[in-house]
Amino acid sequence: MKGHSEFTVKSRIWIHTEEGAFLGLGRVALLQKIGEHGSISKAALDMKMSYKKAWELVNSMNSQNNGPLVTRKIGGKGGGGSELTEFGRRAIKLFTELETENQEFLNEKMKKMNFGNEKG
Amino acid sequence: MKGHSEFTVKSRIWIHTEEGAFLGLGRVALLQKIGEHGSISKAALDMKMSYKKAWELVNSMNSQNNGPLVTRKIGGKGGGGSELTEFGRRAIKLFTELETENQEFLNEKMKKMNFGNEKG
Repeated sequence: MKGHSEFTVKSRIWIHTEEGAFLGLGRVALLQKIGEHGSISKAALDMKMSYKKAWELVNSMNSQNNGPLVTRKIGGKGGGGSELTEFGRRAIKLFTELETENQEFLNEKMKKMNFGNEKG
Repeated sequence: MKGHSEFTVKSRIWIHTEEGAFLGLGRVALLQKIGEHGSISKAALDMKMSYKKAWELVNSMNSQNNGPLVTRKIGGKGGGGSELTEFGRRAIKLFTELETENQEFLNEKMKKMNFGNEKG
């Protein structure tokens, strides 16, 4: 029998609601950048994404029936900008956890499956 | 507090080896069709895929260091055609199992996470 290569498994996850796509890798990265920069336009720039696109993504997340993930900072130094809500921060945290745990689950399953082993 | 939508999670998985992409949803569907039709060209037609593309996918899977998933039937009635090897059948079965179990895992996690619930 020929030797065999080691198999690895990768995955991507998306969260949906009845209202459509809610959260994926790209949206989570955008939220993280908004939290970091305190600004949708700076986050968009950092991600090499148009402001229009970033705003559409934020709007899509915010307009679903779960309350906003990003809000405008009113006034303060520099007057304005955007910030994550409690739910926005929670969404990043849970999505990241889900992704990590999912990858661990898949790695474990893959090992047990003995994919490339005809005897397995 | 606003009511909230129910969250669902979807995923896609891919299996890789050191030699590159090995198996994904599309490749598994192609293998299933080859098993069904006993022919790469009929499978390609059924999937609205060019024969060239189907052959490239089969070649990519077959040429990795695990032995072939599809082989030529030699002679017999109609002379030729293709069939799945034991490993080909096994690959379909394991990929499908992995996908199903992964989805169950994600559904369960998602329920426990109480994603949309600020108290969760």
